[in-house]
Amino acid sequence: MKQYLLAPGPTPVPPAVLLAMAQPMIHHRTPEYEALFADVRRDLRLLFQCKNEVLMFAASGTGAMEGAVVNTLSPGDRVIVVRGGKFGERWADICQAYGLHVFPVDIPYGKSVDPAAVAGALERAPASKAVFATHSETSTGAVHDIQALAGIVRRTEALLVVDAITSLGVMDLPMDAWGVDVAVSGSQKALMLPPGLSFAALSDRAWERVPLARLPRFYFDFVRERKAIAGNQSAYTPAVSLVVGLRETLRLILTEGLPGVFARHDRLARAARAGVQALGLTLFAEHPGAACTAVTAPPGIDGGAVVKGMRKRGITIAGGQGSMKGKMFRISHMGYVDPFDVVTALGALEMVLADLGYPVSFGAGVGAAQRVLQA
Amino acid sequence: MKQYLLAPGPTPVPPAVLLAMAQPMIHHRTPEYEALFADVRRDLRLLFQCKNEVLMFAASGTGAMEGAVVNTLSPGDRVIVVRGGKFGERWADICQAYGLHVFPVDIPYGKSVDPAAVAGALERAPASKAVFATHSETSTGAVHDIQALAGIVRRTEALLVVDAITSLGVMDLPMDAWGVDVAVSGSQKALMLPPGLSFAALSDRAWERVPLARLPRFYFDFVRERKAIAGNQSAYTPAVSLVVGLRETLRLILTEGLPGVFARHDRLARAARAGVQALGLTLFAEHPGAACTAVTAPPGIDGGAVVKGMRKRGITIAGGQGSMKGKMFRISHMGYVDPFDVVTALGALEMVLADLGYPVSFGAGVGAAQRVLQA
Repeated sequence: MKQYLLAPGPTPVPPAVLLAMAQPMIHHRTPEYEALFADVRRDLRLLFQCKNEVLMFAASGTGAMEGAVVNTLSPGDRVIVVRGGKFGERWADICQAYGLHVFPVDIPYGKSVDPAAVAGALERAPASKAVFATHSETSTGAVHDIQALAGIVRRTEALLVVDAITSLGVMDLPMDAWGVDVAVSGSQKALMLPPGLSFAALSDRAWERVPLARLPRFYFDFVRERKAIAGNQSAYTPAVSLVVGLRETLRLILTEGLPGVFARHDRLARAARAGVQALGLTLFAEHPGAACTAVTAPPGIDGGAVVKGMRKRGITIAGGQGSMKGKMFRISHMGYVDPFDVVTALGALEMVLADLGYPVSFGAGVGAAQRVLQA
Repeated sequence: MKQYLLAPGPTPVPPAVLLAMAQPMIHHRTPEYEALFADVRRDLRLLFQCKNEVLMFAASGTGAMEGAVVNTLSPGDRVIVVRGGKFGERWADICQAYGLHVFPVDIPYGKSVDPAAVAGALERAPASKAVFATHSETSTGAVHDIQALAGIVRRTEALLVVDAITSLGVMDLPMDAWGVDVAVSGSQKALMLPPGLSFAALSDRAWERVPLARLPRFYFDFVRERKAIAGNQSAYTPAVSLVVGLRETLRLILTEGLPGVFARHDRLARAARAGVQALGLTLFAEHPGAACTAVTAPPGIDGGAVVKGMRKRGITIAGGQGSMKGKMFRISHMGYVDPFDVVTALGALEMVLADLGYPVSFGAGVGAAQRVLQA
């Protein structure tokens, strides 16, 4: 059966990139790799919209998240963590695993943080060393206002550390301009690659903290990695085939141009939202982002059954995670995705919902999406 | 120019495996991935020759090394580290980064550890919690007698933790039978894959220590990973494309059979050694392993110049690392390598040495290797 991958990561890899990665393996301690990595370094800075070097690790995104914690903080430090979904919770889990004193700012699943709540937390927990936030909370589909958070956090001693795993290359995140101190991301989202690379970029302010941070680290040691990168190398063996692919996908992204990439994601997201709403469905997120559309399962229908029904038709989407299991389903439009992927997703969704006894007027969701896409 | 990759990692990837990895991306939270990973789990246990689950991480081999440290030890623990090259030193560096009390057993580069020295260290540092060793010290080409070390360490409370990164699938390491407590490895060596996967297998004795270990960890948390693996999943997004390739390379290895794989590597190593010795060159390692042949640069010739000369002819080998830089060069015969790769390496080496003014009788090295390979 023909397969469509429309889950929020891993996302589809362009065929030309798959073939680039299928070239014979090269060694990393060679001029050839160093020339390749020099291109990647330059393009990563453009993608992250930051002047400092972007660090790269052979790891999934969680690896760079751990790196952001252990390279900037010391045992017992106070930190504020915005928790509004599985990935906000992961920041707190990492911080707790390393003995930090976590002050959570909890928001209901599907909601976005009120920046005033973070300002309040910074007042109640003075001398907090960092605020951890999630730009695109993939588990709920919600986007958080990082620009507003940066404006608040910048007035304190705290660093603003942002999970940009499903926002980098999807929505604008000019980290230097906004004053984000650390942004982390991964390869298997808008970067259109297989999973296995993670990234971290730091502001000057964040780099100043690194020598003071006393949490232990080795594999995710930022100083060691920055030193290696200066010579177009990595401290430990890099995921060479993924770096080969990364050069190709960065070229694709930068050739389209960041404004074009963000506009495309926004248009696809608006189309997907219009489509599901035309079917009478409700969005799970109050302020949905452009990475994926999370849809509340209608009364009497299990979100997992929708995911299974889609899979039977060759389409992979995602269900709800943790306590959201069964209550929603998530359709991605991130990375190597075009208008007809959205049309396909909505067309299949209509048929699956009909199978499950939900009243559907075939073409209603697709048509609503088309009207957005045609505009 | 036609390229030959004969460095000790990354090693060549079989073309069929490259193409398997170039298939469209699949999602990991699906029955398809779970069926794939069930095969991988089973085959990894056969490869590691252990009954317990083999843990897999999206990381290079150093990641699993760090995991072995942080999941078995607590701050201030005494550990004994065998250091006879760059990778033995890495164990010590990781242990020191995590505040362990390191008792080194230092041996000159190129030598293998005398098991009695480890027994002596265990007496001088009683209550040591672990002994860290390297099966195949890739930086010197030396093999260490892990079976003998296991016999000694097993009589104490210490765990024996072994870097098997360039020995797994190259030389026999029956970890359960010998009593090795932790073995770690990586994908880009005898497993014939791109870098980006690392592995760790633990004995029952090692698993008993994990709940007592108080070093902080998150990404490399072994308990969380073991729990996920039981459901054919991973705690965090796995390096899906590499896992797809891993199923293929494990099949290749197990179809050939471990005894056949070890015999092949041994034969290629003997041929390479015979070849360089027939050229009047000296082996760097006193007890060379079957992963790579480290050759001492002859007087007046820089090892780096040999590496560069080989590269100009399309052949990637490795030079010396750290203080061994310039003093040696290393030819790998690990993984997807056959007799004619050894012939190629020696043929090119003869021509490069002649370029550098070293007296060479063309065909002398190749011929000596052929005699081993023909036997």
